[in-house]
Amino acid sequence: MSINSERLRSHFEAMSQIGRIGETGVCRPTLSNLEKQAFELAMVWMQEAGMEARIDGFGNLVGRYKGTNPDLPVLMMGSHLDSQPYGGRFDGTAGVLAAIEVVMSMHEKGIRPERTIDVISFADEEGWRFKKGLFGSRGILGKLEEGELQRKDEDGISREQALREFGLDLSGFKDSEYAPGSIHCFLELHIEQGPVLDLANKPVGVVTGISGPLWLTVKLRGMAGHAGSVPMPLRKDALLGAAEIAVALNEIVTADPSAPTIGTVGTMQVFPGSRNIIPEEVTFTIDLRDIDMARRDKCEEKLRKRIDEIVKKNNLHCEISEDTNSEPRYCAAWIQDIIQDNCVKIGLDAPRLMSGPFHDALTLSYACDYGMIFVRCKDGISHNPLEYSSYEDLALGTEVLYGTMMDILTSA
Amino acid sequence: MSINSERLRSHFEAMSQIGRIGETGVCRPTLSNLEKQAFELAMVWMQEAGMEARIDGFGNLVGRYKGTNPDLPVLMMGSHLDSQPYGGRFDGTAGVLAAIEVVMSMHEKGIRPERTIDVISFADEEGWRFKKGLFGSRGILGKLEEGELQRKDEDGISREQALREFGLDLSGFKDSEYAPGSIHCFLELHIEQGPVLDLANKPVGVVTGISGPLWLTVKLRGMAGHAGSVPMPLRKDALLGAAEIAVALNEIVTADPSAPTIGTVGTMQVFPGSRNIIPEEVTFTIDLRDIDMARRDKCEEKLRKRIDEIVKKNNLHCEISEDTNSEPRYCAAWIQDIIQDNCVKIGLDAPRLMSGPFHDALTLSYACDYGMIFVRCKDGISHNPLEYSSYEDLALGTEVLYGTMMDILTSA
Repeated sequence: MSINSERLRSHFEAMSQIGRIGETGVCRPTLSNLEKQAFELAMVWMQEAGMEARIDGFGNLVGRYKGTNPDLPVLMMGSHLDSQPYGGRFDGTAGVLAAIEVVMSMHEKGIRPERTIDVISFADEEGWRFKKGLFGSRGILGKLEEGELQRKDEDGISREQALREFGLDLSGFKDSEYAPGSIHCFLELHIEQGPVLDLANKPVGVVTGISGPLWLTVKLRGMAGHAGSVPMPLRKDALLGAAEIAVALNEIVTADPSAPTIGTVGTMQVFPGSRNIIPEEVTFTIDLRDIDMARRDKCEEKLRKRIDEIVKKNNLHCEISEDTNSEPRYCAAWIQDIIQDNCVKIGLDAPRLMSGPFHDALTLSYACDYGMIFVRCKDGISHNPLEYSSYEDLALGTEVLYGTMMDILTSA
Repeated sequence: MSINSERLRSHFEAMSQIGRIGETGVCRPTLSNLEKQAFELAMVWMQEAGMEARIDGFGNLVGRYKGTNPDLPVLMMGSHLDSQPYGGRFDGTAGVLAAIEVVMSMHEKGIRPERTIDVISFADEEGWRFKKGLFGSRGILGKLEEGELQRKDEDGISREQALREFGLDLSGFKDSEYAPGSIHCFLELHIEQGPVLDLANKPVGVVTGISGPLWLTVKLRGMAGHAGSVPMPLRKDALLGAAEIAVALNEIVTADPSAPTIGTVGTMQVFPGSRNIIPEEVTFTIDLRDIDMARRDKCEEKLRKRIDEIVKKNNLHCEISEDTNSEPRYCAAWIQDIIQDNCVKIGLDAPRLMSGPFHDALTLSYACDYGMIFVRCKDGISHNPLEYSSYEDLALGTEVLYGTMMDILTSA
């Protein structure tokens, strides 16, 4: 192996102590002292790996391994060290530690490439603290939106205030941006956060793209009434309507078993929510994804038609708001091929699979070609202290990242 | 008219000031100072009507109009003056004020029957404060259950403490009970709390019985996972299962359009309840009612079979608890006929209809024959400040109650 799997493991073990909850969980909120401690630890490793490390204006941790030709667009690698509030040890962290490890291994071998390498731990990928994520990766590409600094966390602390308390004076935004064309490509290793590799019994997978979610919020309004006294034909039951829509969504996304389309109703609020009162208002969310945008659009069209029918049949009023509508972003074919070659080189049969969750790579996809390596994740569990990837699998993924990085650095 | 509709109206207007919320709402919790104020006002009217009034050991307000033969079983009438937390002016109150009015009218006419009349405002019919209702009516029949006095409200106050603070020392339970055979029959006037009379454009209805609800709580457990990464065939989505069950319940209860069977899913809690996480655990309630117990049993059987199928299909784990299982309780045919006769006498075409909600009459049905008069309720809205019955309709219902009472008193 080109990388040092023992060192990689020790880095995981050290990092998982910062913000540890229970035996296996982690809580490292963005812009917290815990994230700062994680950055400080990672900075030590970056410096050992020959990088110059700094925290940029957006709160990203950036380690730079200078190439011999500063005019070449950089090779960027990374992920994030912030975690879900009740999260695991590997989500995000894996991509940062793997990137540090591959540079460290290269540095040990005395290799100095022509192209500069930037390893980044992006600020606030998770987004739960201020209800909007991918902050650092959007920041470096000049893609922050108006009002973002005024968003507040549950304690009423604004992002601006949190940035200041983190030691950032907001003057460094412009300097921290990457000019168009200045990034050659982006590589991110991440745990799968799904069960596909685990069920296929494969340690590593080649990501084909990130399927953009369509996020809808549906609010149905009917008419409350005593559950014991309103005859069925006279009812306007908002929960029945919601249930019929959830069933319809499932029918639509499973109609073609060969398609990877997925649809989820993840939340449902019922008002007034009393066992003997017919529900008057039900609000629920729909998450619809497909790597094929045309197919996703077709599903959406069918779904909206079914919603119309269900709303009419149940005499309901319906409001649908579109909260997010991301298009799928495909990994560069040439990077997928390099990743696949490097899997083959170490004897891995790596399936190609799409990513349902989004990652910092989604933001980077608008600025450069990108590739992603997935590492098997036990039972597909993530965003939970039970999240688990073995150190053997993580080492294999990191080895593939090393080979991919080297191939990119040595190719034209 | 035999009753005084103007006086009845003024009593409604005065009573609706006690615990008033907004223009039309009422909040009079059981065993509160507000209920005590309501009792004090009603006691004044009872005394004006020639009754001896007292608060019994259970917190019931009892007005006794003594008959000439104390050995005869009493004619009991009444309902309740406690309200829902965000309730209306008529639920319960209508039955108490109508009963007082019919006795007052009789008293004014100088009529003293052989049979004693008891007018009761039952304690804690609503049951929301201590999560168990019909307290006073169960109390007088010796039907309290173990541990009831230890039930606590949201502020941690036990029913025992609340009874003491209401001025009751718990020593009066035994004296307040009615011996078996001591109640001749029970009459209750109540607003319909459903839309049947309103839609039929009829002010008054003759109740055929109270359909007992079957109350189930269903807890489905699946497996959480990222909504973006778990392929549909691998999911164990508890919310999808719950939605399929809600749809199945509706199909089952509406299969025979000629049957009055009704089924409701009124609550649904989703865990973890995040838009991009597949629901792991969903808990919801089922309310199933029919006046025909055999038909309700058949629906339950079909439902449980469908739940089994749905649980298997979605790879879920399921627990069902039965919280309440009441059998239908029919109104005495002879009382229904007397009520109907008295409707005809004043030119009313009164439909016969079942009561979905339960009432104090449900408890009394185990001790004596009973009859109920329903008064039209606008749009079927109840348990809400918007609850509305016109004073004209309430007067008509009270007139029917007067005639019914007189017919019963003068019959053998």
